[in-house]
Amino acid sequence: MGAIRNGRTSPKPYRLRKPLISPKSQSGAQLPWAERLLGHPGLLTIAYFLSLTVIIALLLLIPAASREPGSTSPIVALFTALSALSTCGIPVENTATHWTVFGQAIILVGVQLGGLGVMTFAALITLFMNRRMNISQQLLTAREVGVTKLGEVKGVLAMVFATTFLMEAITFVALYPGLLRLNGHHWGIAAWEALFYAVSSFNNTGFTPDASGLYVNNWSVGLPVMVSAFLGTLGFPVLHEMSRTITRRLSPRRWSLHTKLTLSATFVLVAVSLIWFLADEWNNPALFANADASTRLRGALSSAVMPRSSGFDLSWVPWVSDETKLYMSVSMFIGGGSSSTAGGIHVTTFAVLVLTMLATFQGRDEVTAFRKRIPGRIVRSAISMTMACAIVVFVASMALMQVTGRSLTDALFETCSAFSLGGYTVGVADEDNPATMVILGAVMFFGRIGPMTIVYAINKPRGSVVIHYPDEPVSVG
Amino acid sequence: MGAIRNGRTSPKPYRLRKPLISPKSQSGAQLPWAERLLGHPGLLTIAYFLSLTVIIALLLLIPAASREPGSTSPIVALFTALSALSTCGIPVENTATHWTVFGQAIILVGVQLGGLGVMTFAALITLFMNRRMNISQQLLTAREVGVTKLGEVKGVLAMVFATTFLMEAITFVALYPGLLRLNGHHWGIAAWEALFYAVSSFNNTGFTPDASGLYVNNWSVGLPVMVSAFLGTLGFPVLHEMSRTITRRLSPRRWSLHTKLTLSATFVLVAVSLIWFLADEWNNPALFANADASTRLRGALSSAVMPRSSGFDLSWVPWVSDETKLYMSVSMFIGGGSSSTAGGIHVTTFAVLVLTMLATFQGRDEVTAFRKRIPGRIVRSAISMTMACAIVVFVASMALMQVTGRSLTDALFETCSAFSLGGYTVGVADEDNPATMVILGAVMFFGRIGPMTIVYAINKPRGSVVIHYPDEPVSVG
Ligand SMILES: [K+]
Ligand SMILES: [K+]
Repeated sequence: MGAIRNGRTSPKPYRLRKPLISPKSQSGAQLPWAERLLGHPGLLTIAYFLSLTVIIALLLLIPAASREPGSTSPIVALFTALSALSTCGIPVENTATHWTVFGQAIILVGVQLGGLGVMTFAALITLFMNRRMNISQQLLTAREVGVTKLGEVKGVLAMVFATTFLMEAITFVALYPGLLRLNGHHWGIAAWEALFYAVSSFNNTGFTPDASGLYVNNWSVGLPVMVSAFLGTLGFPVLHEMSRTITRRLSPRRWSLHTKLTLSATFVLVAVSLIWFLADEWNNPALFANADASTRLRGALSSAVMPRSSGFDLSWVPWVSDETKLYMSVSMFIGGGSSSTAGGIHVTTFAVLVLTMLATFQGRDEVTAFRKRIPGRIVRSAISMTMACAIVVFVASMALMQVTGRSLTDALFETCSAFSLGGYTVGVADEDNPATMVILGAVMFFGRIGPMTIVYAINKPRGSVVIHYPDEPVSVG
Repeated sequence: MGAIRNGRTSPKPYRLRKPLISPKSQSGAQLPWAERLLGHPGLLTIAYFLSLTVIIALLLLIPAASREPGSTSPIVALFTALSALSTCGIPVENTATHWTVFGQAIILVGVQLGGLGVMTFAALITLFMNRRMNISQQLLTAREVGVTKLGEVKGVLAMVFATTFLMEAITFVALYPGLLRLNGHHWGIAAWEALFYAVSSFNNTGFTPDASGLYVNNWSVGLPVMVSAFLGTLGFPVLHEMSRTITRRLSPRRWSLHTKLTLSATFVLVAVSLIWFLADEWNNPALFANADASTRLRGALSSAVMPRSSGFDLSWVPWVSDETKLYMSVSMFIGGGSSSTAGGIHVTTFAVLVLTMLATFQGRDEVTAFRKRIPGRIVRSAISMTMACAIVVFVASMALMQVTGRSLTDALFETCSAFSLGGYTVGVADEDNPATMVILGAVMFFGRIGPMTIVYAINKPRGSVVIHYPDEPVSVG
């Protein structure tokens, strides 16, 4: 700890008078466009999601999208569009039985655009904030890895698109043989389902062309879906850094604090979930009981990995105990990684909160992890963002209780599922009660861009910013 | 903000090598005793409460304490003793019908000892922490007011005892005429009830010799009880400083940050509660409906002031909506003032959390209030203590759901009532289900000394402590 203190080499603060894009672009022709894009990523994200929501909803209202033409009400179309674009996936209509293949394709396009959109914007915001806060590190040291080294908007976009399509292609290939066998060798149906699962799983949407959960409850389909969904929750910067470990033999020791925190927090959360489900739900016939060892293991893994944001296999959810619903609510509230298709306050935020508590209880003034100090501003961002999200979830739950008369447990579960883009439902979202769709739609929208926008708003460049060195930032939104 | 930054006159940190009691006592003969007392106030408080709980429980088991001799089980006696000593007041037996006057007197003694105990220890801890953190202010400036100027353990004790007995005497005198009239001029009964209400209200216990709520629902009894309970929630340092405003014409502008924050946060919480109850419970016959304006006003005031820690007039509580139960749970979780007989995380902690959120959202690195900066250590203490308390409340609520099968709303309400020492009950505490008494008893005990002990443990003197100036501390436990 002394070493870190001594590392504060520059007592004279560095002042930024205006948003700093990068030395390169300041002399380039693209500056105004890039500056506007980066100057208001929050507004841009909101505009992107709202306009796409309306377009997708209009497409879903086309009679050919529903198996019973004309059976889709505008609010159901809007809710489904928002659910797809936010990569939440709470269904009010059974995806397999209400929508035609055309309707499912619209939903799938929405999922893909939503996933790409949030990955892009989150990566840009992370990049932008890291740049601002890390300017000294970038200029003075050569040890930056990952996203801070990409250096350009185009590079980030290319990387996000390449990562997404590569992951989806691998998932597609892994899924195809199993689905071909399950579909009696109809190659067209198998390809369509493989595509649907591949996009839906990596984007953590949880929409499924098979609502019974039958295919997921099978290793040949379940395992690729689970792995793809899990990797999707880690977030783009972590995937990028992990791939560099393979392609450029980057030692895991030199991973950024962000990657280390994301991976260790994710590991702890999945392990605790596994223990919880085995301990509390062992006798739950929808998950474990009356099944062979293989099914039990798959049920345990699925329930440990999926709830944080993936939302596949809805079949067992309504049958868990109230305590498990609460546990899952907390787990969903925490969510997945930053700059990922997963929602929630994000695992790094959760890690920062826990580290803050540990540091405080040990009487340390500095929050540290992996021999790095987490800057005070990051700590305050994590705390303030979490409080704001908790208030939104709490108020929305109370509103749902009011309009449905359901219990707090169910209202909280459904709100956390919408906020974290988890996509599970205990039936509070109800097509016959438009108020539930309005409330949950608003929560989904907030869940998709709220935490990211809040943290950006907190950390955005101001007229005059004093910067201290040499902290290493963690994105917590 | 510039002024405050410039106010940091001493860049060289002041180091404390060992716990500093006070310049006087270091040369006095009383040092070892005082040092031991102050060195482990957390342990001392735990020992005090546990040993008194056993003694009071044994006294309550005496046949003469129950109206039906022998009808009190050991666990009920222990729970009632803990409920009295912690100044919580959740009853498992009707105070008026189960206990004789002898039994009620034992409970009253428990309440008084519990209230004095916690006031004393809280004041000592506050004094001790303020001293350590404020040493520069004490030595260099002459503007300390209130508790930091008392300077000696004896002084604190004398002040706590004097304040308590003076407040109780005033309440007794204010109550007597009304109770004399209500009891048909039986002066003995009136005196006993006035004494019971006086002690129970200032100590925020909420035990009442009249479970129907009849007397409290009457201005001549209700108003003194309400005022006394309200003043009791403010806490000793605030009462002391307010009294100095009258006796020594201290300008409110020169009040400490602690007093200003406590009073403003309390005002906001009571005002919001008043609006909530009028808005959400207007048609609730147990509170407002079918009543004249005077009764409605009393109901609204009572429901706004009492729930945070006083717990008088249990009659209407089970009849509120689920949303109000949740609102009350939050309100109880926040609780009353530091160093008061009220529980919860305390209003200053809540204020620090809100101020931290506001500062972060405004991009400020410093948490400020009333032109003072709240030190980072206080902010982290507030956050960490709140998280720890939230985890305890959450886990206890889940445990109560498990052993009773009650809803989350009811379990959370009862847990928050125990944690905050609120004393209201929706019937989860059940004499036929000992597990509920064990869980709620543990929560009460934690609620009584947990927040205080956690904050003390965080801020206790360590081998070498670096202090920065000139922050003003707020006690948040
Ligand atoms: K999802
Ligand atoms: K009480």
